Amino acid sequence: MEKNGLTLKDIDEAEKRIHPYTVRTPLLRPGTLDEVLGCEVYLKPEMLQVTGAFKMRGATNKILSLTEAERSKGIITSSSGNHGQACALAGRTIAIKVTVVLPEDAPQIKIKKVKAFGANVLLGPRNYKERMKIVREEREKHGYILVHAYEDFAVMAGQGTIALEILRDCPGIETILVPIGGGGLISGISTAIKEINPKIRVIGVESEKCAPYAESRKAGRRVEVDFLPTIADGLACREPGDNPYPIIEKYVDDIVTVDEEDIKTAMRLIATHAKLIAEPSSSVGIAALLSKRIKLRPDEKVCSVLTSGNWDIDMIGKIFNEGL
Amino acid sequence: MEKNGLTLKDIDEAEKRIHPYTVRTPLLRPGTLDEVLGCEVYLKPEMLQVTGAFKMRGATNKILSLTEAERSKGIITSSSGNHGQACALAGRTIAIKVTVVLPEDAPQIKIKKVKAFGANVLLGPRNYKERMKIVREEREKHGYILVHAYEDFAVMAGQGTIALEILRDCPGIETILVPIGGGGLISGISTAIKEINPKIRVIGVESEKCAPYAESRKAGRRVEVDFLPTIADGLACREPGDNPYPIIEKYVDDIVTVDEEDIKTAMRLIATHAKLIAEPSSSVGIAALLSKRIKLRPDEKVCSVLTSGNWDIDMIGKIFNEGL
Repeated sequence: MEKNGLTLKDIDEAEKRIHPYTVRTPLLRPGTLDEVLGCEVYLKPEMLQVTGAFKMRGATNKILSLTEAERSKGIITSSSGNHGQACALAGRTIAIKVTVVLPEDAPQIKIKKVKAFGANVLLGPRNYKERMKIVREEREKHGYILVHAYEDFAVMAGQGTIALEILRDCPGIETILVPIGGGGLISGISTAIKEINPKIRVIGVESEKCAPYAESRKAGRRVEVDFLPTIADGLACREPGDNPYPIIEKYVDDIVTVDEEDIKTAMRLIATHAKLIAEPSSSVGIAALLSKRIKLRPDEKVCSVLTSGNWDIDMIGKIFNEGL
Repeated sequence: MEKNGLTLKDIDEAEKRIHPYTVRTPLLRPGTLDEVLGCEVYLKPEMLQVTGAFKMRGATNKILSLTEAERSKGIITSSSGNHGQACALAGRTIAIKVTVVLPEDAPQIKIKKVKAFGANVLLGPRNYKERMKIVREEREKHGYILVHAYEDFAVMAGQGTIALEILRDCPGIETILVPIGGGGLISGISTAIKEINPKIRVIGVESEKCAPYAESRKAGRRVEVDFLPTIADGLACREPGDNPYPIIEKYVDDIVTVDEEDIKTAMRLIATHAKLIAEPSSSVGIAALLSKRIKLRPDEKVCSVLTSGNWDIDMIGKIFNEGL
């Protein structure tokens, strides 16, 4: 029952479906950021979402979209990060079996969190493609339904509900900045935005250390990149996803990259002006504004999607101190 | 036109009045805190309020309650912290003249912030009572209206609007924890709560280094305390306020005190589980839950009011690191 494609209607339906299980996050307007960043800054704080990340939207929509027969089989995914936790919690809430395949060298804390939400954890190789082989084997053996973090259209539709909320809270929004990892989030958001109002700009942001979508756009075709370590670890991805890539090429106006220093400064700005803990991946939109790589009018209404806040608090403390 | 007393009606009216100028903050429910704290934890995140603190509610209500003649005279207040900033910004928004008398040794950053919001700054002695003498002299000279941080009933009414929002978002709330500094916030909140549903518990929390309300309750009369330095600097106050004291004695079920270590642990918990920057004064409610000084059922619905997030980010970073 795999769907091909994603439309505004899917996102509207996702919103109704996930509503009882997710937080309707507010749109924040911490006025003192405007002067620093040179535009009218709005923030969509998805660190206030259940599990501390937007991923709960997509995982919940996917699980609720399954048939009874599919639900009875259970789901499987491979993510050491926010998507794995979201699948685990959404699965527990809706009472289906969840298996998460984690890299064998994943931090104990991440393994513990996924287990704490009641999921079955399997350990596999560090390499993503090799780990996905285990996922496929387990699927075949047990009939599990795969919930892919960014290739799945129902997951994308869930993430796209963020756009509907932003438009409802600020109908005059002009530009939306969205972090790109695998590309599921920006696929959902850009589909909703462009099918409602094509004049609103949607700009994707990647770490310059690992920018498969920016590189692919430059090359005019999908390219695989070597990625260097980045503090924006939640965005690390070697190549554009099969399903997100055409959506992003169709709907995303521009893709910019940011450096590590701007990401850290953005984290401190978000903490100081908006009182929020943003993990590095979450801060690339504000970093892009800092870097002045996006042309903006001073009175332009710009929303940065803050995707998540799940990082070790001591590491965040160190970044706060580095600002001195 | 000084009013005597505070009623639910004043708070209802305040809510309508301040609505266009303040944020209707959400009620957050970060489920993973329940296990750590032993109850169903709800958070009212007033660090997301305009100026990063609840004080904007009270200052705005007071200014909007003034007659045209009073507005034309301008207001005066004495607060180096959140109330001073709130008066400055509310005054600028509503276009009236604001004078803030600050201690001459106030950090430059605080002086700069008040000035940035367009207020006139006067420097006075460090001692509060001596500084209030200057406030009185300036009032007499210029006819300014005093906006006292916690003695003023219109200010209390503004702070009380927090309670109306909590009840609307969670009608089944059973216990509300409120930091006590001067006592204006808990006067507003307890009046609203007890006049709507006297069964809901309202518990005040002070730093054990400086606990005039807890000491006064123990003594059965208003007492002045020597206060020691506390990281909860926003709560430092030597004696109960004239106007808040009888309200608190009438409506507040219990007053507990917390130690410095529990305050720091609470700040880390709030950052880790709720992704919010809480200043120490803001964290005493969660510290009280940590200290187990409040009797609770595991399924009791408890809301901690997080008052503010205006602390230097590097100092917060140090506290995050201390947790290792």
